[in-house]
Amino acid sequence: MHNIRLVIAYDGTNYSGWQIQKNAKTIQGEIEKALKKILRKKVRLIAAGRTDSGVHARAQIANFTTSNPALGNAGLEVVLQRAVNSKLSRDICIIEAKTVPLEFHSRFDAKGKIYRYTILNNRIDDPFLRRYYCKVPYKLNIALMRKEAKVLLGRHDFKSFQAKSALSRIKSTIRTIKKITITKNKQFIHIDIEANGFLHNMVRNIVGTLIEIGRGYFPEGSMRKTLSAKDRTKAGPTAQAKGLTLLKVKY
Amino acid sequence: MHNIRLVIAYDGTNYSGWQIQKNAKTIQGEIEKALKKILRKKVRLIAAGRTDSGVHARAQIANFTTSNPALGNAGLEVVLQRAVNSKLSRDICIIEAKTVPLEFHSRFDAKGKIYRYTILNNRIDDPFLRRYYCKVPYKLNIALMRKEAKVLLGRHDFKSFQAKSALSRIKSTIRTIKKITITKNKQFIHIDIEANGFLHNMVRNIVGTLIEIGRGYFPEGSMRKTLSAKDRTKAGPTAQAKGLTLLKVKY
Repeated sequence: MHNIRLVIAYDGTNYSGWQIQKNAKTIQGEIEKALKKILRKKVRLIAAGRTDSGVHARAQIANFTTSNPALGNAGLEVVLQRAVNSKLSRDICIIEAKTVPLEFHSRFDAKGKIYRYTILNNRIDDPFLRRYYCKVPYKLNIALMRKEAKVLLGRHDFKSFQAKSALSRIKSTIRTIKKITITKNKQFIHIDIEANGFLHNMVRNIVGTLIEIGRGYFPEGSMRKTLSAKDRTKAGPTAQAKGLTLLKVKY
Repeated sequence: MHNIRLVIAYDGTNYSGWQIQKNAKTIQGEIEKALKKILRKKVRLIAAGRTDSGVHARAQIANFTTSNPALGNAGLEVVLQRAVNSKLSRDICIIEAKTVPLEFHSRFDAKGKIYRYTILNNRIDDPFLRRYYCKVPYKLNIALMRKEAKVLLGRHDFKSFQAKSALSRIKSTIRTIKKITITKNKQFIHIDIEANGFLHNMVRNIVGTLIEIGRGYFPEGSMRKTLSAKDRTKAGPTAQAKGLTLLKVKY
Protein backbone atom coordinates (compact mmCIF):
# COMPACT_ATOMS: atom_id res chain seq x y z
CA MET A 1 0.00 0.00 0.00
CA HIS A 2 1.21 3.49 -0.86
CA ASN A 3 -0.02 6.84 0.31
CA ILE A 4 0.35 9.51 -2.35
CA ARG A 5 0.12 13.21 -1.50
CA LEU A 6 -0.87 15.66 -4.22
CA VAL A 7 -0.41 19.44 -4.30
CA ILE A 8 -3.15 20.85 -6.52
CA ALA A 9 -3.75 24.29 -8.06
CA TYR A 10 -7.08 25.14 -9.61
CA ASP A 11 -9.16 27.92 -11.06
CA GLY A 12 -12.51 27.09 -9.42
CA THR A 13 -14.61 29.26 -11.76
CA ASN A 14 -16.18 26.39 -13.67
CA TYR A 15 -16.58 23.92 -10.81
CA SER A 16 -19.14 23.28 -8.08
CA GLY A 17 -16.40 23.28 -5.47
CA TRP A 18 -13.98 20.59 -4.33
CA GLN A 19 -16.28 17.88 -3.05
CA ILE A 20 -17.49 15.14 -5.37
CA GLN A 21 -21.19 15.34 -6.27
CA LYS A 22 -23.53 13.53 -8.58
CA ASN A 23 -24.63 15.64 -11.55
CA ALA A 24 -22.10 18.43 -10.93
CA LYS A 25 -18.53 18.99 -12.08
CA THR A 26 -16.23 19.21 -9.06
CA ILE A 27 -12.46 19.33 -8.60
CA GLN A 28 -12.39 16.11 -6.61
CA GLY A 29 -14.61 14.41 -9.17
CA GLU A 30 -12.40 15.43 -12.09
CA ILE A 31 -9.16 14.34 -10.40
CA GLU A 32 -10.60 11.02 -9.24
CA LYS A 33 -11.81 10.38 -12.80
CA ALA A 34 -8.34 11.13 -14.19
CA LEU A 35 -6.66 8.94 -11.56
CA LYS A 36 -9.00 6.07 -12.37
CA LYS A 37 -8.05 6.27 -16.05
CA ILE A 38 -4.36 6.09 -15.17
CA LEU A 39 -4.43 3.58 -12.29
CA ARG A 40 -7.37 1.56 -13.69
CA LYS A 41 -8.83 1.46 -10.23
CA LYS A 42 -11.12 3.76 -8.33
CA VAL A 43 -9.38 5.85 -5.69
CA ARG A 44 -10.80 8.19 -3.06
CA LEU A 45 -9.12 11.53 -2.41
CA ILE A 46 -8.95 13.09 1.04
CA ALA A 47 -8.40 16.85 0.90
CA ALA A 48 -7.18 19.32 3.51
CA GLY A 49 -10.34 21.36 3.06
CA ARG A 50 -13.41 21.47 0.89
CA THR A 51 -13.41 24.67 -1.11
CA ASP A 52 -16.82 25.99 -2.14
CA SER A 53 -18.21 26.48 -5.60
CA GLY A 54 -16.17 29.09 -7.48
CA VAL A 55 -13.33 29.19 -4.92
CA HIS A 56 -9.75 28.72 -6.15
CA ALA A 57 -6.63 27.04 -4.77
CA ARG A 58 -2.92 27.66 -5.25
CA ALA A 59 -1.92 24.63 -3.20
CA GLN A 60 -4.75 22.39 -2.04
CA ILE A 61 -3.38 19.22 -0.43
CA ALA A 62 -5.01 15.83 -1.02
CA ASN A 63 -3.89 12.25 -0.53
CA PHE A 64 -5.03 8.81 -1.62
CA THR A 65 -3.90 5.28 -0.95
CA THR A 66 -3.25 2.78 -3.70
CA SER A 67 -1.86 -0.72 -3.95
CA ASN A 68 -0.51 -0.04 -7.44
CA PRO A 69 2.96 -1.60 -7.29
CA ALA A 70 4.48 1.01 -9.61
CA LEU A 71 3.91 3.75 -7.07
CA GLY A 72 6.18 4.34 -4.12
CA ASN A 73 8.91 4.90 -6.67
CA ALA A 74 9.96 8.55 -6.94
CA GLY A 75 10.46 8.45 -10.71
CA LEU A 76 7.04 6.96 -11.29
CA GLU A 77 5.30 9.57 -9.17
CA VAL A 78 6.35 12.18 -11.72
CA VAL A 79 5.08 9.96 -14.51
CA LEU A 80 1.76 9.64 -12.65
CA GLN A 81 1.60 13.40 -12.13
CA ARG A 82 2.15 14.14 -15.83
CA ALA A 83 -0.28 11.45 -16.90
CA VAL A 84 -3.01 12.81 -14.61
CA ASN A 85 -2.37 16.39 -15.77
CA SER A 86 -2.70 15.25 -19.37
CA LYS A 87 -6.21 13.93 -18.57
CA LEU A 88 -7.31 17.06 -16.71
CA SER A 89 -8.75 20.26 -18.09
CA ARG A 90 -6.15 23.06 -17.94
CA ASP A 91 -7.88 24.85 -15.07
CA ILE A 92 -6.83 22.05 -12.68
CA CYS A 93 -3.19 21.15 -12.27
CA ILE A 94 -1.29 18.66 -10.09
CA ILE A 95 1.79 20.63 -9.04
CA GLU A 96 3.43 17.78 -7.14
CA ALA A 97 2.87 14.06 -6.42
CA LYS A 98 4.87 12.40 -3.67
CA THR A 99 4.81 9.20 -1.63
CA VAL A 100 4.31 9.96 2.06
CA PRO A 101 4.09 7.76 5.17
CA LEU A 102 0.90 5.70 5.35
CA GLU A 103 -0.14 7.61 8.49
CA PHE A 104 -0.37 10.94 6.66
CA HIS A 105 -3.94 12.30 6.44
CA SER A 106 -4.47 15.57 4.51
CA ARG A 107 -7.35 16.74 6.67
CA PHE A 108 -6.61 15.47 10.20
CA ASP A 109 -2.92 16.37 10.06
CA ALA A 110 -3.46 19.93 8.82
CA LYS A 111 -2.33 22.38 11.52
CA GLY A 112 -3.53 25.47 9.73
CA LYS A 113 -4.58 27.03 6.47
CA ILE A 114 -4.03 30.36 4.79
CA TYR A 115 -6.75 31.84 2.60
CA ARG A 116 -6.38 34.97 0.48
CA TYR A 117 -9.30 37.17 -0.45
CA THR A 118 -8.67 39.58 -3.33
CA ILE A 119 -10.63 42.79 -3.86
CA LEU A 120 -10.32 44.96 -6.96
CA ASN A 121 -10.81 48.42 -5.46
CA ASN A 122 -11.47 50.26 -8.69
CA ARG A 123 -14.30 51.13 -11.05
CA ILE A 124 -12.49 49.57 -13.98
CA ASP A 125 -12.17 45.79 -14.26
CA ASP A 126 -8.98 43.92 -15.13
CA PRO A 127 -9.90 41.61 -18.03
CA PHE A 128 -6.92 39.35 -17.34
CA LEU A 129 -7.64 38.61 -13.68
CA ARG A 130 -11.42 39.02 -13.74
CA ARG A 131 -12.07 35.51 -12.39
CA TYR A 132 -9.96 36.00 -9.27
CA TYR A 133 -11.25 39.08 -7.50
CA CYS A 134 -14.38 40.70 -6.18
CA LYS A 135 -14.86 44.27 -7.42
CA VAL A 136 -15.54 46.90 -4.78
CA PRO A 137 -15.76 50.30 -6.51
CA TYR A 138 -16.24 52.32 -3.29
CA LYS A 139 -13.45 54.09 -1.44
CA LEU A 140 -12.24 51.84 1.38
CA ASN A 141 -10.61 52.97 4.63
CA ILE A 142 -7.87 50.35 4.77
CA ALA A 143 -6.33 51.67 7.99
CA LEU A 144 -9.66 51.18 9.76
CA MET A 145 -10.12 47.73 8.19
CA ARG A 146 -6.68 46.71 9.54
CA LYS A 147 -7.50 48.02 13.00
CA GLU A 148 -10.89 46.25 13.14
CA ALA A 149 -9.44 43.00 11.77
CA LYS A 150 -7.07 42.81 14.76
CA VAL A 151 -10.07 42.08 17.01
CA LEU A 152 -10.34 38.66 15.34
CA LEU A 153 -6.82 37.55 16.23
CA GLY A 154 -6.61 34.67 18.70
CA ARG A 155 -9.03 32.02 19.93
CA HIS A 156 -12.67 33.01 19.63
CA ASP A 157 -16.13 31.67 18.97
CA PHE A 158 -16.62 32.68 15.31
CA LYS A 159 -20.29 31.69 15.19
CA SER A 160 -21.23 35.14 13.79
CA PHE A 161 -19.16 34.37 10.69
CA GLN A 162 -20.43 30.87 10.02
CA ALA A 163 -22.88 30.16 7.21
CA LYS A 164 -26.33 29.67 8.74
CA SER A 165 -26.84 26.47 6.77
CA ALA A 166 -23.83 24.91 8.56
CA LEU A 167 -25.14 25.42 12.10
CA SER A 168 -26.67 22.01 12.61
CA ARG A 169 -23.70 20.03 11.33
CA ILE A 170 -20.85 21.57 13.28
CA LYS A 171 -19.77 20.71 16.84
CA SER A 172 -17.71 23.71 17.86
CA THR A 173 -17.50 27.16 16.34
CA ILE A 174 -14.30 28.03 18.21
CA ARG A 175 -11.26 28.61 16.03
CA THR A 176 -7.90 30.37 16.38
CA ILE A 177 -6.91 33.05 13.88
CA LYS A 178 -3.12 33.32 13.91
CA LYS A 179 -2.62 36.13 11.44
CA ILE A 180 -4.56 38.61 9.33
CA THR A 181 -2.79 40.93 6.91
CA ILE A 182 -4.36 43.47 4.59
CA THR A 183 -2.08 44.65 1.81
CA LYS A 184 -2.64 46.99 -1.10
CA ASN A 185 -0.93 46.40 -4.45
CA LYS A 186 -1.99 48.96 -7.06
CA GLN A 187 -5.76 48.58 -7.43
CA PHE A 188 -5.83 45.24 -5.58
CA ILE A 189 -6.37 44.65 -1.87
CA HIS A 190 -5.39 41.24 -0.50
CA ILE A 191 -6.78 40.01 2.81
CA ASP A 192 -4.78 37.00 4.02
CA ILE A 193 -6.15 35.03 6.95
CA GLU A 194 -4.34 32.18 8.66
CA ALA A 195 -6.23 30.01 11.16
CA ASN A 196 -6.05 26.53 12.61
CA GLY A 197 -9.31 25.86 10.81
CA PHE A 198 -12.21 27.69 9.21
CA LEU A 199 -15.98 27.46 9.59
CA HIS A 200 -18.12 27.31 6.48
CA ASN A 201 -18.00 30.73 4.72
CA MET A 202 -15.92 32.17 7.58
CA VAL A 203 -13.40 34.01 5.38
CA ARG A 204 -16.07 35.36 3.04
CA ASN A 205 -18.24 36.56 5.95
CA ILE A 206 -15.28 38.23 7.67
CA VAL A 207 -14.35 39.92 4.39
CA GLY A 208 -17.96 40.98 3.82
CA THR A 209 -17.92 42.60 7.26
CA LEU A 210 -14.54 44.28 6.64
CA ILE A 211 -15.84 45.76 3.38
CA GLU A 212 -18.87 47.23 5.17
CA ILE A 213 -16.51 48.76 7.74
CA GLY A 214 -14.08 50.01 5.09
CA ARG A 215 -16.79 51.77 3.09
CA GLY A 216 -18.33 53.32 6.20
CA TYR A 217 -21.59 51.34 6.36
CA PHE A 218 -20.58 49.72 9.66
CA PRO A 219 -19.05 52.09 12.28
CA GLU A 220 -15.74 51.64 14.05
CA GLY A 221 -16.08 48.97 16.74
CA SER A 222 -18.41 46.82 14.63
CA MET A 223 -16.04 43.88 14.43
CA ARG A 224 -15.90 43.47 18.20
CA LYS A 225 -19.70 43.75 18.46
CA THR A 226 -20.22 41.29 15.62
CA LEU A 227 -17.81 38.77 17.09
CA SER A 228 -19.32 38.86 20.55
CA ALA A 229 -22.93 38.69 19.25
CA LYS A 230 -22.43 35.09 18.02
CA ASP A 231 -25.18 35.86 15.54
CA ARG A 232 -24.69 35.59 11.78
CA THR A 233 -27.21 38.36 11.10
CA LYS A 234 -24.88 40.91 12.77
CA ALA A 235 -22.06 40.31 10.27
CA GLY A 236 -21.81 41.73 6.75
CA PRO A 237 -22.93 39.89 3.61
CA THR A 238 -20.95 36.90 2.32
CA ALA A 239 -18.30 38.19 -0.10
CA GLN A 240 -18.34 36.59 -3.58
CA ALA A 241 -16.67 33.19 -3.96
CA LYS A 242 -14.47 34.17 -6.91
CA GLY A 243 -12.27 36.45 -4.77
CA LEU A 244 -11.25 33.57 -2.51
CA THR A 245 -8.17 31.37 -2.92
CA LEU A 246 -6.78 28.66 -0.64
CA LEU A 247 -3.11 29.68 -0.60
CA LYS A 248 -1.46 27.16 1.69
CA VAL A 249 -2.06 24.29 4.09
CA LYS A 250 0.32 23.98 7.02
CA TYR A 251 1.31 20.62 8.56
CA MET B 1 -17.61 66.95 -34.10
CA HIS B 2 -15.64 65.28 -31.35
CA ASN B 3 -12.77 62.83 -31.57
CA ILE B 4 -12.77 60.35 -28.69
CA ARG B 5 -9.72 58.26 -27.87
CA LEU B 6 -10.17 54.97 -26.01
CA VAL B 7 -7.59 52.93 -24.14
CA ILE B 8 -8.75 49.31 -24.22
CA ALA B 9 -7.64 46.16 -22.39
CA TYR B 10 -8.82 42.75 -23.51
CA ASP B 11 -8.37 39.05 -23.03
CA GLY B 12 -8.45 37.95 -26.68
CA THR B 13 -9.05 34.25 -25.95
CA ASN B 14 -12.65 34.20 -27.09
CA TYR B 15 -12.38 36.61 -30.05
CA SER B 16 -11.39 36.37 -33.69
CA GLY B 17 -8.99 39.26 -33.26
CA TRP B 18 -9.51 43.01 -33.29
CA GLN B 19 -10.91 43.65 -36.75
CA ILE B 20 -14.63 43.59 -37.37
CA GLN B 21 -15.89 40.60 -39.38
CA LYS B 22 -19.19 39.22 -40.43
CA ASN B 23 -20.10 35.98 -38.62
CA ALA B 24 -17.26 36.22 -36.09
CA LYS B 25 -16.99 37.81 -32.67
CA THR B 26 -14.25 40.45 -32.68
CA ILE B 27 -13.10 43.11 -30.23
CA GLN B 28 -13.86 45.96 -32.63
CA GLY B 29 -17.25 44.47 -33.40
CA GLU B 30 -18.19 44.17 -29.73
CA ILE B 31 -17.10 47.71 -28.84
CA GLU B 32 -18.81 49.25 -31.88
CA LYS B 33 -22.00 47.39 -30.93
CA ALA B 34 -21.78 48.72 -27.36
CA LEU B 35 -21.07 52.27 -28.57
CA LYS B 36 -24.04 52.11 -30.91
CA LYS B 37 -26.32 51.17 -28.02
CA ILE B 38 -25.11 54.13 -25.99
CA LEU B 39 -24.77 56.79 -28.71
CA ARG B 40 -27.71 55.47 -30.79
CA LYS B 41 -25.62 55.97 -33.87
CA LYS B 42 -23.16 53.76 -35.69
CA VAL B 43 -19.53 54.70 -35.14
CA ARG B 44 -16.38 53.34 -36.72
CA LEU B 45 -13.32 52.67 -34.57
CA ILE B 46 -9.80 53.23 -35.81
CA ALA B 47 -7.23 51.19 -33.86
CA ALA B 48 -3.47 51.56 -33.52
CA GLY B 49 -3.04 47.97 -34.69
CA ARG B 50 -5.10 44.95 -35.53
CA THR B 51 -4.36 42.17 -33.11
CA ASP B 52 -4.86 38.63 -34.40
CA SER B 53 -7.28 36.01 -33.18
CA GLY B 54 -6.45 35.01 -29.60
CA VAL B 55 -4.00 37.90 -29.03
CA HIS B 56 -4.48 40.12 -25.96
CA ALA B 57 -4.01 43.83 -25.23
CA ARG B 58 -3.21 45.76 -22.08
CA ALA B 59 -3.59 49.14 -23.78
CA GLN B 60 -4.84 49.07 -27.34
CA ILE B 61 -5.58 52.59 -28.58
CA ALA B 62 -8.61 53.36 -30.74
CA ASN B 63 -10.47 56.53 -31.67
CA PHE B 64 -13.79 57.45 -33.21
CA THR B 65 -15.50 60.66 -34.21
CA THR B 66 -18.99 61.56 -33.15
CA SER B 67 -21.26 64.55 -33.42
CA ASN B 68 -23.02 63.64 -30.18
CA PRO B 69 -23.29 67.01 -28.42
CA ALA B 70 -22.88 65.48 -24.95
CA LEU B 71 -19.32 64.42 -25.73
CA GLY B 72 -16.37 66.78 -25.60
CA ASN B 73 -17.27 67.25 -21.96
CA ALA B 74 -14.78 65.61 -19.59
CA GLY B 75 -17.43 64.48 -17.10
CA LEU B 76 -19.51 62.85 -19.79
CA GLU B 77 -16.58 60.92 -21.21
CA VAL B 78 -16.43 59.01 -17.93
CA VAL B 79 -20.16 58.39 -18.12
CA LEU B 80 -19.71 57.10 -21.69
CA GLN B 81 -16.83 54.87 -20.59
CA ARG B 82 -18.84 53.30 -17.77
CA ALA B 83 -21.91 52.88 -19.94
CA VAL B 84 -19.89 51.13 -22.65
CA ASN B 85 -18.17 48.87 -20.10
CA SER B 86 -21.56 47.90 -18.71
CA LYS B 87 -22.58 46.68 -22.19
CA LEU B 88 -19.36 44.73 -22.78
CA SER B 89 -18.45 41.24 -21.72
CA ARG B 90 -15.95 41.33 -18.85
CA ASP B 91 -13.05 40.22 -21.01
CA ILE B 92 -13.03 43.60 -22.77
CA CYS B 93 -12.63 46.80 -20.80
CA ILE B 94 -12.39 50.49 -21.71
CA ILE B 95 -9.71 51.78 -19.34
CA GLU B 96 -9.98 55.41 -20.43
CA ALA B 97 -12.09 57.61 -22.73
CA LYS B 98 -10.86 61.09 -23.58
CA THR B 99 -11.59 63.85 -26.07
CA VAL B 100 -8.56 64.51 -28.26
CA PRO B 101 -7.88 67.00 -31.11
CA LEU B 102 -9.78 66.17 -34.29
CA GLU B 103 -6.47 65.54 -36.09
CA PHE B 104 -5.55 62.61 -33.85
CA HIS B 105 -5.50 59.25 -35.72
CA SER B 106 -4.76 56.11 -33.67
CA ARG B 107 -3.02 54.30 -36.50
CA PHE B 108 -1.23 57.00 -38.52
CA ASP B 109 0.01 58.87 -35.45
CA ALA B 110 1.45 55.81 -33.70
CA LYS B 111 5.24 56.15 -33.48
CA GLY B 112 5.82 52.72 -32.06
CA LYS B 113 4.36 49.71 -30.30
CA ILE B 114 5.52 47.36 -27.60
CA TYR B 115 4.44 43.72 -27.67
CA ARG B 116 5.11 41.20 -24.93
CA TYR B 117 5.38 37.50 -25.59
CA THR B 118 5.08 35.28 -22.50
CA ILE B 119 6.48 31.75 -22.30
CA LEU B 120 5.82 29.38 -19.41
CA ASN B 121 9.11 27.51 -19.24
CA ASN B 122 7.93 24.64 -17.10
CA ARG B 123 6.32 21.22 -17.40
CA ILE B 124 3.55 22.26 -15.02
CA ASP B 125 0.85 24.70 -16.14
CA ASP B 126 -0.40 27.67 -14.14
CA PRO B 127 -4.20 27.30 -14.01
CA PHE B 128 -4.64 31.01 -13.21
CA LEU B 129 -2.69 32.42 -16.14
CA ARG B 130 -3.21 29.60 -18.63
CA ARG B 131 -4.76 31.86 -21.27
CA TYR B 132 -1.80 34.24 -21.39
CA TYR B 133 1.29 32.17 -22.11
CA CYS B 134 2.68 29.57 -24.46
CA LYS B 135 4.11 26.56 -22.65
CA VAL B 136 7.65 25.51 -23.61
CA PRO B 137 8.65 22.57 -21.38
CA TYR B 138 12.22 22.28 -22.79
CA LYS B 139 15.28 23.82 -21.17
CA LEU B 140 16.00 27.16 -22.85
CA ASN B 141 19.38 28.86 -23.12
CA ILE B 142 18.26 32.39 -22.31
CA ALA B 143 21.74 33.90 -22.53
CA LEU B 144 22.02 32.67 -26.13
CA MET B 145 18.48 33.86 -26.94
CA ARG B 146 19.42 37.36 -25.68
CA LYS B 147 22.62 37.37 -27.75
CA GLU B 148 20.85 36.24 -30.93
CA ALA B 149 17.96 38.68 -30.42
CA LYS B 150 20.42 41.59 -30.56
CA VAL B 151 20.93 40.92 -34.27
CA LEU B 152 17.39 42.18 -34.86
CA LEU B 153 17.96 45.60 -33.33
CA GLY B 154 17.80 48.52 -35.74
CA ARG B 155 16.41 49.01 -39.24
CA HIS B 156 16.15 45.79 -41.26
CA ASP B 157 14.09 44.03 -43.87
CA PHE B 158 12.07 41.62 -41.70
CA LYS B 159 10.60 39.69 -44.63
CA SER B 160 11.74 36.37 -43.11
CA PHE B 161 9.44 37.02 -40.15
CA GLN B 162 6.34 38.04 -42.07
CA ALA B 163 3.38 35.70 -42.48
CA LYS B 164 3.46 34.29 -46.01
CA SER B 165 -0.19 35.15 -46.51
CA ALA B 166 0.58 38.85 -46.02
CA LEU B 167 3.21 39.10 -48.78
CA SER B 168 0.97 40.34 -51.54
CA ARG B 169 -0.71 43.09 -49.50
CA ILE B 170 2.28 44.83 -47.99
CA LYS B 171 4.44 47.52 -49.61
CA SER B 172 7.60 47.46 -47.53
CA THR B 173 8.90 44.84 -45.13
CA ILE B 174 11.45 47.22 -43.60
CA ARG B 175 10.90 48.03 -39.93
CA THR B 176 12.99 49.36 -37.04
CA ILE B 177 13.22 47.38 -33.82
CA LYS B 178 14.18 49.79 -31.06
CA LYS B 179 14.42 47.41 -28.14
CA ILE B 180 14.22 43.71 -27.30
CA THR B 181 14.43 42.51 -23.73
CA ILE B 182 14.18 38.94 -22.48
CA THR B 183 13.46 38.65 -18.77
CA LYS B 184 12.86 35.65 -16.56
CA ASN B 185 10.42 35.85 -13.63
CA LYS B 186 10.09 32.50 -11.84
CA GLN B 187 8.83 30.03 -14.46
CA PHE B 188 7.88 32.79 -16.92
CA ILE B 189 10.00 34.26 -19.69
CA HIS B 190 8.87 37.60 -21.15
CA ILE B 191 10.12 38.74 -24.55
CA ASP B 192 9.33 42.43 -25.02
CA ILE B 193 9.80 43.90 -28.49
CA GLU B 194 9.45 47.58 -29.34
CA ALA B 195 9.37 48.63 -32.99
CA ASN B 196 8.10 51.50 -35.11
CA GLY B 197 5.71 48.97 -36.66
CA PHE B 198 5.25 45.24 -37.04
CA LEU B 199 4.61 42.99 -40.03
CA HIS B 200 1.88 40.40 -39.81
CA ASN B 201 2.96 37.65 -37.34
CA MET B 202 6.37 39.32 -36.93
CA VAL B 203 6.56 38.99 -33.13
CA ARG B 204 5.28 35.43 -33.14
CA ASN B 205 7.73 34.38 -35.88
CA ILE B 206 10.67 36.05 -34.10
CA VAL B 207 9.66 34.31 -30.86
CA GLY B 208 9.26 30.97 -32.66
CA THR B 209 12.81 31.38 -33.99
CA LEU B 210 14.17 32.38 -30.56
CA ILE B 211 12.60 29.28 -28.99
CA GLU B 212 14.26 27.02 -31.61
CA ILE B 213 17.58 28.72 -30.80
CA GLY B 214 17.03 28.52 -27.04
CA ARG B 215 16.26 24.81 -27.08
CA GLY B 216 19.22 24.03 -29.36
CA TYR B 217 17.35 23.12 -32.55
CA PHE B 218 18.79 26.12 -34.41
CA PRO B 219 22.54 26.75 -33.90
CA GLU B 220 24.17 29.98 -32.76
CA GLY B 221 24.22 32.48 -35.62
CA SER B 222 20.80 31.38 -36.91
CA MET B 223 19.15 34.73 -36.29
CA ARG B 224 21.58 36.59 -38.56
CA LYS B 225 21.19 33.95 -41.27
CA THR B 226 17.41 33.98 -40.99
CA LEU B 227 17.21 37.77 -41.13
CA SER B 228 19.45 38.06 -44.19
CA ALA B 229 17.70 35.23 -46.05
CA LYS B 230 14.48 37.29 -46.43
CA ASP B 231 12.71 33.96 -46.63
CA ARG B 232 9.93 32.93 -44.22
CA THR B 233 10.85 29.26 -44.51
CA LYS B 234 14.21 29.92 -42.80
CA ALA B 235 12.57 31.20 -39.59
CA GLY B 236 11.10 29.08 -36.81
CA PRO B 237 7.41 28.21 -36.52
CA THR B 238 4.85 30.88 -35.57
CA ALA B 239 4.53 30.90 -31.76
CA GLN B 240 0.97 30.48 -30.41
CA ALA B 241 -1.28 33.56 -30.35
CA LYS B 242 -2.27 33.25 -26.71
CA GLY B 243 1.22 34.18 -25.47
CA LEU B 244 1.09 37.58 -27.22
CA THR B 245 -0.08 40.86 -25.66
CA LEU B 246 -0.02 44.37 -27.09
CA LEU B 247 1.42 46.25 -24.11
CA LYS B 248 1.67 49.84 -25.27
CA VAL B 249 1.31 52.17 -28.23
CA LYS B 250 3.66 55.15 -28.35
CA TYR B 251 2.69 58.50 -29.88
